[in-house]
Amino acid sequence: MKICIIGLGLIGGSFSLGLKAKRSNLIVSGVDMDPSHAITAKSLGIIDEVTTFEEGISQADLVVLATPVSSMENQIGHALDLLQENGVLIDLGSTKQRIVNAARQHVRRNRYVATHPIAGTENSGPTAAFATLMRNKMMILCNKEESDADAVKMVENVFRDLEMRINYMDATEHDRHIAYVSHLSHISSFALGATVLDKEKDEQSIFVMAGSGFSSTVRLAKSSPNMWAPIFSQNQENVLDALDAYINKLQSFREIIANNDEEKSRKLMHDTNEIRRVLLGIEKQTNS
Amino acid sequence: MKICIIGLGLIGGSFSLGLKAKRSNLIVSGVDMDPSHAITAKSLGIIDEVTTFEEGISQADLVVLATPVSSMENQIGHALDLLQENGVLIDLGSTKQRIVNAARQHVRRNRYVATHPIAGTENSGPTAAFATLMRNKMMILCNKEESDADAVKMVENVFRDLEMRINYMDATEHDRHIAYVSHLSHISSFALGATVLDKEKDEQSIFVMAGSGFSSTVRLAKSSPNMWAPIFSQNQENVLDALDAYINKLQSFREIIANNDEEKSRKLMHDTNEIRRVLLGIEKQTNS
Repeated sequence: MKICIIGLGLIGGSFSLGLKAKRSNLIVSGVDMDPSHAITAKSLGIIDEVTTFEEGISQADLVVLATPVSSMENQIGHALDLLQENGVLIDLGSTKQRIVNAARQHVRRNRYVATHPIAGTENSGPTAAFATLMRNKMMILCNKEESDADAVKMVENVFRDLEMRINYMDATEHDRHIAYVSHLSHISSFALGATVLDKEKDEQSIFVMAGSGFSSTVRLAKSSPNMWAPIFSQNQENVLDALDAYINKLQSFREIIANNDEEKSRKLMHDTNEIRRVLLGIEKQTNS
Repeated sequence: MKICIIGLGLIGGSFSLGLKAKRSNLIVSGVDMDPSHAITAKSLGIIDEVTTFEEGISQADLVVLATPVSSMENQIGHALDLLQENGVLIDLGSTKQRIVNAARQHVRRNRYVATHPIAGTENSGPTAAFATLMRNKMMILCNKEESDADAVKMVENVFRDLEMRINYMDATEHDRHIAYVSHLSHISSFALGATVLDKEKDEQSIFVMAGSGFSSTVRLAKSSPNMWAPIFSQNQENVLDALDAYINKLQSFREIIANNDEEKSRKLMHDTNEIRRVLLGIEKQTNS
């Protein structure tokens, strides 16, 4: 089987390494707009050969878009033009609606399968890739009914080899939910990091006391701006909804603290301790 | 050496276990307002005997307050009344100014040393305690000049045995900084958890897609309401300052996203990637 990966960063690279570990007969070619990334990816064994967008896609059984979501939206039509007759195209983007929409009018829409493997770290580039990134994580397959059955089947088998659990969803539902459970976390983390870095200008020793709690909440602020800026644009409406709900919640909490209302403060925190149930679920899945 | 621990939760319990692992000649008595906590602490070897506030303090060389900070403020005068002539009293509270103020007018203020070991987890109670919680972490000793030199020395030796690094600070500076690097993280995390739990009422499957990023940013929302409500009250002014700065930053970010201004979005995130320096520093210390 020949695979072509467009975009050789954390996600595209980890996809390739994970699948290569499971399938011995795989030939992977790759493209990156940064030539040094392509060279690094080859030297790390992420890809077998560096190719071009046109050549890579036209020779592959499976084409994988793993570029920033804004690029995917622009690339998807051209990729479907170039695809072999029985070729399959997937994207690994963190938003789905706009990419699915961009594909919808194409005469070969049926050869495209919209996927989102929910896996990542705060690091980026080919050196951040590793074979087990996606193992035991959730993969969301969107608008299955718009793709050919054989294409869906091929893609399901690929993600099963990556040991991912597969869930089916409409692209609009995907984008609405992911805004809350992923995009908002990134914004809250970036804003936290920015707030404390601003304060450091006046209070130079402020980080002396930063410990594991700060670390955990601010970790995502290390994420790639080139990946995340287009995600927030593409999912703008849902992200703003989630962000407004979050700011409202912070303002209620602020009011409670300003009023010294410890009873309400305790209740808000006690009710939110319910998040243990969710975190336990995530741990169980990831360690299973 | 006889030690009495008031409050047998995560912090008091871990302090005792850590010190017991280093000093064989230690006798530790303990008090908790929840009798079941005291029994559990004894069965886990956290304390050697259950005692009362009065008896425990009057017989100890070192008394350790590890209760919620509001209780500390109320207990500290009474504890100094009961303390042996050469006894030493410390508190392990996450706020310092109000506790230091409560002690200041006492004739025996000099036997009290204000400390804050910056270590914790999102879990609570004696079963959450473990001997290495404080190892390689930072301990802040406040207003050293208000305490007797021999008392400071005894306390420094205790925390060195716990393998903590010691930093000296004024209580007002401590509270101003800790609001940003610890208290704000807890509020951001609780508000994030509360926002998504609210949304779950309408969108029952929202957590299907929650992964490691959400986990990391929301972890602190598991923290104890009884510990944290008094911290926010005691450090109200600084916490509100930090929270206002955070809400402002979120509103700027919201504006950038609403305007689809990807250039500004990239710049904000790129500048915040600087947080890598801070996180690297925390890792280095903790793994050293």
